[in-house]
Amino acid sequence: MANTPITIKDIARALNVSVSTVSRALKNNPDISKETRKLVNDYARQHNYKPNVMAANLRSSRSNIIGVIVPQLVHHFFSCVLSGIERQASAAGYTILVAQSTESYEEEVQIVRRFQEARVCGVIASLAKQTAHYDHYQDLLDAGIPVVFYDRICTGVKTERVVVDDYAGAFTAVEYLIQTGCKRICFFGADPHLEITKNRRNGYLDALRRYNIPIDESLITLCDTRQKAMALTPDLLESPLRPDAFFAINDETAAGVLFACKLAGVKVPQEVSICGFSDGMIAQSTDPKLTTVEQHGDEVGASAFAILQEKLERLSHKESGAGPLIKNRIVRTNLVVRGTTK
Amino acid sequence: MANTPITIKDIARALNVSVSTVSRALKNNPDISKETRKLVNDYARQHNYKPNVMAANLRSSRSNIIGVIVPQLVHHFFSCVLSGIERQASAAGYTILVAQSTESYEEEVQIVRRFQEARVCGVIASLAKQTAHYDHYQDLLDAGIPVVFYDRICTGVKTERVVVDDYAGAFTAVEYLIQTGCKRICFFGADPHLEITKNRRNGYLDALRRYNIPIDESLITLCDTRQKAMALTPDLLESPLRPDAFFAINDETAAGVLFACKLAGVKVPQEVSICGFSDGMIAQSTDPKLTTVEQHGDEVGASAFAILQEKLERLSHKESGAGPLIKNRIVRTNLVVRGTTK
Repeated sequence: MANTPITIKDIARALNVSVSTVSRALKNNPDISKETRKLVNDYARQHNYKPNVMAANLRSSRSNIIGVIVPQLVHHFFSCVLSGIERQASAAGYTILVAQSTESYEEEVQIVRRFQEARVCGVIASLAKQTAHYDHYQDLLDAGIPVVFYDRICTGVKTERVVVDDYAGAFTAVEYLIQTGCKRICFFGADPHLEITKNRRNGYLDALRRYNIPIDESLITLCDTRQKAMALTPDLLESPLRPDAFFAINDETAAGVLFACKLAGVKVPQEVSICGFSDGMIAQSTDPKLTTVEQHGDEVGASAFAILQEKLERLSHKESGAGPLIKNRIVRTNLVVRGTTK
Repeated sequence: MANTPITIKDIARALNVSVSTVSRALKNNPDISKETRKLVNDYARQHNYKPNVMAANLRSSRSNIIGVIVPQLVHHFFSCVLSGIERQASAAGYTILVAQSTESYEEEVQIVRRFQEARVCGVIASLAKQTAHYDHYQDLLDAGIPVVFYDRICTGVKTERVVVDDYAGAFTAVEYLIQTGCKRICFFGADPHLEITKNRRNGYLDALRRYNIPIDESLITLCDTRQKAMALTPDLLESPLRPDAFFAINDETAAGVLFACKLAGVKVPQEVSICGFSDGMIAQSTDPKLTTVEQHGDEVGASAFAILQEKLERLSHKESGAGPLIKNRIVRTNLVVRGTTK
C-alpha cells in the first residue's frame, strides 16, 4: 500500500471535488478558488503525491524538458553556456536534453527531429558552422515549440536571440592595440558567413577607421585554430611589412600565434602584441598570459533560458507562439589586459 | 490529411494484421516473420510513420532517455566524457538528459529525483566531491533503472563502473620522474576520500617503493587547483630539502606549480620537473608545454554508454536487473612527455 503512489483521482475522491478541479488546482490555475487550491495542494503534499510527468506531458503535449543544441561539447565557451542553461533550468524545475551537432548540418537536422520525438517544450540552439539552411528550426516554430538562439544565431528565422557583444568586444580590443602603438594589426577570423566573424570583423574595421588606419585586406585571414595559426603566422612575421599585432577570433588561435612568435624569436609584446577572444583556461596558461576579450558564457546561457522560460509562460497562457518577439539580449564583453599586449 | 500522422492502427488495418503484430514488427521482434517485419517497416517508411515516443514510453514505462550526471560542466575531462556519451547515445537513438551536481550531495539527490520523474531508462553518473551516501543511487537500482558510474565511482553500490587507470597512470609518471633523476617528488592530490586520489596516491607510493625511495609524508599535500598550487609551492621551493619534482592530480594544478617556479626563478625542468594529469588544452598552452598523463575522457564516456546499453538490452529481454554485473572497464592512460620534465 505504501508503495502505490496516490493519483489525482484519489485526491478528487478524498476531497469530494472533480478530477479536473484537482488537476487545475495542482497547476495553481487561477480559475480555481484560492481555498480549493490550498486544500488540494496541502493534501497532495501530505500524501506524497507525485505527478506522472510523462502522462501529464502526453495529455498536454507539453513537457518540462528543454532541448539544447551545442556545436561542440569539448569547448570552453560552449561548456560555460551549457552550465548557465543547466543551472537556471534545474532551479526552475526543467530538465535539459543535450546534443552536439559536431558542426554538421545533417546532424543538427537529426537532433531537431529527435527533440521533437521526445516532445521538448522548447529548444535553445547555437548553429553548426556548416548550417546555412534553417527549415528544421522553422518546423519547430510551426509546431509551436519556441526556439532561442545563442552565440551563433540564425537571421533567417524570426525568433529570440542571445549574443555576445562581438562588435563592441572586437572594437575595444583593436582600439586598445592602436592606443598602445600598433599600426599593422592582423585579424585572424573564422568562417566568413558566421555572424560572429562578421561582427568581430566589423568591430576590427571600424576601430581602424576611427583612428584613420588604412585597411589592408592582406592582414585579414581565415585562421581559427592553433594549427592554422602555427602554419600561417611565420610567413606573416617574415613579410617585409611585418604585422605588429594579431587580433584572433579565439584564445586557441592566439596561443598558436604566441608559440609561432616564440619559435621565430619575435618578442611578445615588445615587437608583436597579441589579443585573443574568450578568456578560458588557455588564456591563463600561456606565458605571458593572454590579453583577451572576456565572454560571459554562463550569462549567455542563463539569459537564453530566461527568455525561453518567459516565452513558455506566455504560451501556457494561450498567447500565440508566433506573436511579437520578447527580446534579443546582447551580453557585454570586456577586455582583460594581460601580458601579450603593451 | 497530410498533417495527420499515421498510427500503428492505420498500418494494421492497411496490411490486415493485428496491432500487436505491427508493434512487434516495428521493434524487429524475432517472433514476427522476416517477411512481415519487412512489409510493416516498408509501409511505415513509405507513409512517414513516426512513433509517438512518449506514448510508447508510457505504455512500457521505459524511455530511450538516459540521465547523465556530471560534477562540473566547465571542466575539460568531464566535457570529453559527456561528448563520448552523447556521440554513442545519439548514434544508438538515445537522447541524454544532462545535469551537473556542482559537487553538491544535495543537488545530486535532487537530480536523481528529477531523472526518475522524467522516467529515464538508465543513468550514467560521476560522484560529487561531497557525496559520501549512496541511497539515492540504490533507489534507482531498486526501481530497475541501471546505473553506470564513471571516473568518480561509488564502491558502496553494486553496479558497473568505468574508470581511468589512475594507479597505472600515476605509477608510470612517477617512475619516469625517478628515471630522469628526481628523488624528492611532491604529490599534489585532491580530497583523500575520492577513489581517484587514493589510486593515484597508491601509484605514486608504489613507484617510490619500487625504486627504494623513502616516503616523506611532508611531500604529500591536498592541492588540486591553480590557486592552491600558487599558494603552496613557494614555501616548498624555499624549504631546506627542496623537492626536485611535482606530480599534480590535474593539469590546472601543474600549471600553477609551473607559474610559481617561474616567479621564484626556479628553472623547469633543469631544477624542478613537473608532471600533470589530464592532457587538456592547458597542457598545450603552458611554456614549456606540460608533461602529463593523458586520460581518454571520450573513451570513458563511450564505454560507459556501451555498458549501459548492454544492460538495457538484457533488461528488455526480461533478465533480472539485479543479475550479475556485466563488467567494469578500466580505460588505459599514457604518459605524454613534453617540456616540463627532463
